[in-house]
Amino acid sequence: MKPINVGLLGIGTVGGGTATVLKRNAEEISRRAGRAIQLRMVADLNTDRAREVAGEGVEVTNDANQVVCHPDIDIVVELIGGTGIAKDMVLKAIEHGKHVVTANKKLLAEYGNEIFARAQEKGVTVAFEAAVAGGIPIIKALREGLTANRIEWIAGIINGTSNFILTEMREKGSDFADVLQEAQRLGYAEADPTFDIEGHDAAHKLTLMSAIAFGIPVQFSKAYLEGISKLTSQDISYAEQLGYRIKLLGVTKRKANGIELRVHPTLIPEKRLIANVNGVMNAVLAKGDAVGQTMYYGAGAGAEPTASAVVADLVDVTRLATADPEHRVPHLAFQPNQMADLPILPIEEIETCYYLRLDAADRPGVLADVTRILADAGISIDAMMQKEPEAGVDRATVIILTHLAVEKQVNAAMARIEALPTIHGTVTRIRVETLDN
Amino acid sequence: MKPINVGLLGIGTVGGGTATVLKRNAEEISRRAGRAIQLRMVADLNTDRAREVAGEGVEVTNDANQVVCHPDIDIVVELIGGTGIAKDMVLKAIEHGKHVVTANKKLLAEYGNEIFARAQEKGVTVAFEAAVAGGIPIIKALREGLTANRIEWIAGIINGTSNFILTEMREKGSDFADVLQEAQRLGYAEADPTFDIEGHDAAHKLTLMSAIAFGIPVQFSKAYLEGISKLTSQDISYAEQLGYRIKLLGVTKRKANGIELRVHPTLIPEKRLIANVNGVMNAVLAKGDAVGQTMYYGAGAGAEPTASAVVADLVDVTRLATADPEHRVPHLAFQPNQMADLPILPIEEIETCYYLRLDAADRPGVLADVTRILADAGISIDAMMQKEPEAGVDRATVIILTHLAVEKQVNAAMARIEALPTIHGTVTRIRVETLDN
Repeated sequence: MKPINVGLLGIGTVGGGTATVLKRNAEEISRRAGRAIQLRMVADLNTDRAREVAGEGVEVTNDANQVVCHPDIDIVVELIGGTGIAKDMVLKAIEHGKHVVTANKKLLAEYGNEIFARAQEKGVTVAFEAAVAGGIPIIKALREGLTANRIEWIAGIINGTSNFILTEMREKGSDFADVLQEAQRLGYAEADPTFDIEGHDAAHKLTLMSAIAFGIPVQFSKAYLEGISKLTSQDISYAEQLGYRIKLLGVTKRKANGIELRVHPTLIPEKRLIANVNGVMNAVLAKGDAVGQTMYYGAGAGAEPTASAVVADLVDVTRLATADPEHRVPHLAFQPNQMADLPILPIEEIETCYYLRLDAADRPGVLADVTRILADAGISIDAMMQKEPEAGVDRATVIILTHLAVEKQVNAAMARIEALPTIHGTVTRIRVETLDN
Repeated sequence: MKPINVGLLGIGTVGGGTATVLKRNAEEISRRAGRAIQLRMVADLNTDRAREVAGEGVEVTNDANQVVCHPDIDIVVELIGGTGIAKDMVLKAIEHGKHVVTANKKLLAEYGNEIFARAQEKGVTVAFEAAVAGGIPIIKALREGLTANRIEWIAGIINGTSNFILTEMREKGSDFADVLQEAQRLGYAEADPTFDIEGHDAAHKLTLMSAIAFGIPVQFSKAYLEGISKLTSQDISYAEQLGYRIKLLGVTKRKANGIELRVHPTLIPEKRLIANVNGVMNAVLAKGDAVGQTMYYGAGAGAEPTASAVVADLVDVTRLATADPEHRVPHLAFQPNQMADLPILPIEEIETCYYLRLDAADRPGVLADVTRILADAGISIDAMMQKEPEAGVDRATVIILTHLAVEKQVNAAMARIEALPTIHGTVTRIRVETLDN
């Protein structure tokens, strides 16, 4: 059978990895796919580097337009990133009847509805395994592997930079700023780390998984984001004393009144497998009504792990290139005319457990006041820990773990607690996921 | 689009789960698949129970032949088990041009080559996600998700009964026999538990994964099997003191001279995620050259988890029902004319690390003799632990962890050690997998 011709847009880290894997494993891949998958064209502004990385026999251009319009190209791989030229080129490739493979989570989380609709009209596929959790085949697992299930929730460690920082903070007791510097030195964090540490990257990935899990359009703008930059090593240590680890977790849940879609630092019981996913590794835990909990673990970034997902998509697209579009796996798992109209819940409406840390006067009656306020708000307490004040300090640290509560009620209770004359400063609040059912 | 009609052979635990999931999640499933998947016929010797479980509108018969020949049936689900009538019915269904979905690991591990070849000739698919690790979509992950990779090895906890027993032995310090009784009482072990605890079940599953990973025919008869019935709580405790957990692990590895295919009790460093997979849960760790290590975790058995895999296969087969056969995912991941002829290595040729426990006279020079024998055999020592003898006993327990060694050399060294006058009885040997690269 004739080879499938691939045009690559952007040959940086992941693009280079893709070229390498396609070349090194060419035999292994064609033995599986039944035909060769060959890199035919590369567009990159740095044509010298592109020529070097792509190797012999690959046409190199500095104009992506040349690739997306070329009659010989069957599949366009978009690895430019961002939502500018990448969006234009993806749409143009679709207009020209090309299938598209992309690792661009931001593009799809923000413009996926438009892009998938256009692809549907043109009868082409936009595949994006590499956009979520790097080399872990999580899109395939959710979209095909768990297709029998009503998915109830997904919880994922889906940003390696944040997980590396939190792991180091816990293991070494270091402060956020110091570990961030180390991560930057090691190349695990960007010079401007905002996108990773403030939850944007994780929320892009979570938005895509949420759409696939629940059959809803992508709605990144409604996701709740809270990063790890304000976390203290003190809270990480207190959490540990209570039997918990703190992770930057992406959580999306189906509730009676809508869908929760949120990324924030989260306490997880240390006995859960996912609490022990450390360093730059990623893991996604998915709960289906039939299968129960399943977890998927691996490298969430890096040249070859991400290339592994890009190439898997190339093989998938190659296989379905001759199949009629209505028998393909739908972009967002559900048939386009079968999407649900479930609202994304505002963060005030979510329901979870909470870790509250208070700085309280070390005198009788303070805890009685605090627990009374929580009880009045209908919030029940799961555990409480009081740290003895240091010598010469008349205030004690009190940590409270609550049972399930609605966030707006916790907010109201926190305001009342903070107004107590015996409480100093603000209450630190970190959400808790028990992941027990 | 017209519904896909399913005929079910055997409506026991998994069959009942399949009927339940197809009914309960009918809307969710057809929203994804683009057409309804309906249970049309059931064959079971107990027709009364079958009628009750299958519900209204499903034709029930006690003759499986009726189902596999019925012109209205598109896909036959074989859940009879075993290699007798199940094999006949699967082959007959194929002859009649039906696609087949099965959870029968024994059938495919022993007769898969014949069955897949016949299916290939007839242009139908035999899908078997449910045959390995229950609800975990591991066949899909290995066959499609990691398709870009040269797979280097797979290590799996793929028998829930054994993992439950080992977990209980470790947590409670109980003996094998006591925990087995408890597992039988809880329904986690059969009245005759041989198949689970002696590694047959795990080896069937491992054989299928090995074929998919390396592009080789299924060769169950060449798998090495060693069960957990001779493990002592003493060795579990010593392993723990050295920082290891003991698991019944299925291991298959690509080596320069062939493929390792073996199931046996295995020490795993406790810091590895898979060492912390407890109770009846399953997990499979796969190493690809591009993606690195990925892990897949979930329920390996049970009515609905297994049904989750059966129904996922039904949707997959539904999707490819109209695709030309050469564009389908091959049964064993590689195109049938692209299978490799790699030999399965005999157990004496495998290379791994070893845990050796000796009962040695508590006198000078014994350790020198033992370490000399190991050094002569080219076996280097990673760690050694000596347990002080109890009062009144003149023998000490010595535990040695070796670096990588070839098994036949370890066997020869063990024979020489056992022949020492200062060594009492036989040397206990348990294999160790560090899973570090």
